[in-house]
Amino acid sequence: MELPLGFRFAGVSAGIKKKPNTKDVTLIVGAGPLVAAGVYTTNQVVAAPVVLDRGRTPSKSLRAVVVNSGCANACTGTRGMDDAVRMTELVSKYVACGEKVEPEQVLVMSTGVIGRFLPMEKIEAGISAAAGQLREGSDSFLDAADGIMTTDAFRKVIDRKVEIGGKTIRIAGMAKGAGMIGPNMATMLACILTDAPLKPEQAQRLLRRAVDRSFNCISVEGHTSTNDTLLLLSSGAAGGESLSADEEAAFSKELNDTCIALAVQIPDDGEGATHLIEIDIQGAPSDAAAHKIASTVAASNLVKTAIFGADPNWGRIVSAAGYAGVPIETRVLRLVVNGYLLFDRGEPTSFDEQEVSSAMRSNRKTSIQLQVGYGPGDCRYWTSDLNEAYVRFNSDYTT
Amino acid sequence: MELPLGFRFAGVSAGIKKKPNTKDVTLIVGAGPLVAAGVYTTNQVVAAPVVLDRGRTPSKSLRAVVVNSGCANACTGTRGMDDAVRMTELVSKYVACGEKVEPEQVLVMSTGVIGRFLPMEKIEAGISAAAGQLREGSDSFLDAADGIMTTDAFRKVIDRKVEIGGKTIRIAGMAKGAGMIGPNMATMLACILTDAPLKPEQAQRLLRRAVDRSFNCISVEGHTSTNDTLLLLSSGAAGGESLSADEEAAFSKELNDTCIALAVQIPDDGEGATHLIEIDIQGAPSDAAAHKIASTVAASNLVKTAIFGADPNWGRIVSAAGYAGVPIETRVLRLVVNGYLLFDRGEPTSFDEQEVSSAMRSNRKTSIQLQVGYGPGDCRYWTSDLNEAYVRFNSDYTT
Repeated sequence: MELPLGFRFAGVSAGIKKKPNTKDVTLIVGAGPLVAAGVYTTNQVVAAPVVLDRGRTPSKSLRAVVVNSGCANACTGTRGMDDAVRMTELVSKYVACGEKVEPEQVLVMSTGVIGRFLPMEKIEAGISAAAGQLREGSDSFLDAADGIMTTDAFRKVIDRKVEIGGKTIRIAGMAKGAGMIGPNMATMLACILTDAPLKPEQAQRLLRRAVDRSFNCISVEGHTSTNDTLLLLSSGAAGGESLSADEEAAFSKELNDTCIALAVQIPDDGEGATHLIEIDIQGAPSDAAAHKIASTVAASNLVKTAIFGADPNWGRIVSAAGYAGVPIETRVLRLVVNGYLLFDRGEPTSFDEQEVSSAMRSNRKTSIQLQVGYGPGDCRYWTSDLNEAYVRFNSDYTT
Repeated sequence: MELPLGFRFAGVSAGIKKKPNTKDVTLIVGAGPLVAAGVYTTNQVVAAPVVLDRGRTPSKSLRAVVVNSGCANACTGTRGMDDAVRMTELVSKYVACGEKVEPEQVLVMSTGVIGRFLPMEKIEAGISAAAGQLREGSDSFLDAADGIMTTDAFRKVIDRKVEIGGKTIRIAGMAKGAGMIGPNMATMLACILTDAPLKPEQAQRLLRRAVDRSFNCISVEGHTSTNDTLLLLSSGAAGGESLSADEEAAFSKELNDTCIALAVQIPDDGEGATHLIEIDIQGAPSDAAAHKIASTVAASNLVKTAIFGADPNWGRIVSAAGYAGVPIETRVLRLVVNGYLLFDRGEPTSFDEQEVSSAMRSNRKTSIQLQVGYGPGDCRYWTSDLNEAYVRFNSDYTT
């Protein structure tokens, strides 16, 4: 992997998750001060670490991120807030990497079951162990990515290297999430790292722009989490004082593409998913309207079960667009699924149901293209299908 | 059953539904002119019969309602509109009951698969046969209620008799619906009959009031249908010219209770449902805010699967309330499930998970009481759980 310069990583097993020998504490530490930006859940019920991180970003002098999986530290009241702060103190106590890391220079992310207190002895042992294993390089980066997973069936990482203004700039990211995915400003947990020379406000602005077309355009079942956090950390180790306007534009495009490529992995791993559903809305009055239509179609259990069953029951898609709460032109409505035209200017087409069903069954990705008018708004959105495995999994998550 | 005076009913099998010998054409005919009110889906993608009925209610001179199941006549363009009008002409042609029924005096309801054309030869044979079987009394009323069902596991009817102002007034109703239930002004198909002496605008006003706390407070998966229609038909046969203000208030209360009792049967029959979920939101800023929180909790697949699994995973309920988009007071949040206090003023309580799980498993009804602040708004809302049977059923509905 091509990892940004200036970061060290570790992921260890601390016994927080039920399953033995699975990594559940992750550390990401900068060799020097890091520029940091963050976007967070808009849920009013927020986990303690989100409250803590919100007050610390954007920043130009962050040093570390500590993550635990297996317990969300959400709905845990004042004790939960104390525990989150304590995690930053433990990082300060155990990490020896360049200058001393102050507790205020640490961000925290937690994920797992809501409403339970963190097992702080295990957390301390985990942070201490992770601090001793901090390394540069792919192996430790992948350990760190493993340590943030919960119900994920696979690890979600990305890396890319680009030349911008004669400098080599690297961007890498890790994310987790397969359920309780309905981001509204951010998603479960994701962390993007770069060595580009960014300023704090610039990092915040570019991250917010990137999130609108990536993490805000995915869902599994549409349940907005209490812990959604997306961080961008920049070490500046690629060199240079700052990016020119042209360089910023080039970097912004790379950051957007990175976020999309990482975000799409989440619904692709939607709990039990057998299909990744890609929804393209075209011709809406605005991008926001297109987003609302796309997210409404994506949230429909009837659409999701039909796609699981490879059933070209297109009325469910069209009718979901109709109750999204934004104006559509029903006489213009045009629906194409996996390349087949099923509904054209408000009239049904005659198509071979078995042929379309067969195409839906044999492709992991189901493509839905819906034209809703002649407006300038569009949105590309991703979700997963809904099947019996999702139900089984989610009916006995805590008990 | 205690049925309102002045109505005749029939339900016959016309071969529209795949399953042989199941009733799929229903007629409800007034001995004389009927006062009629209707509320309809707010989906922008609407079925042809909804367009037709909207233009004909409220009215003081309706005569009949014809219903077919097995085909929704939705997304069928101009041909679908022609077919709906043709159904009213067929009722006029075949029904001989008192004065001649004009096509313009007929309402139409259709339900079933979206995007297919009505088999008009079968429809004509069905209307002709039903016209010959029109009778007063419970047997024909129940035939009519059977004729409107699609995926329903049981027939949904209600009847009640009350004394108002010295007069005996009867109210009866039938409804259908088990999937694609996310009403927004009305629900799938329901028809309330009464012999109270109502005026058209009065009927419309009372029906709209009744719907807000009944059919607008239920969901199965939250998918708003293209065909939602709720009608109120009054024959006036109970006698008297009109209701006094006191009598209207008494009638309105009965109508509300009737609508609630009928509406609750729909999520209780939610496709594959093993639990009826009753959600009480208290202390919201307004009733509308309470409704929004309740419907958001009801729409969460994570809440619904947890209840299917009798898993007291209360964080899912509280977090769903947090993203409903209306202000809540997180320090006041108080959650009681089946009588057990699980979350109190923003702090988790210690409770016996096995005991609560056991109570959830052994009761068909799961009661959720959530206080979100100290405001005056409240809402009682009903939905069903989500389980594997729902997924299986909906993954191969048309193919």
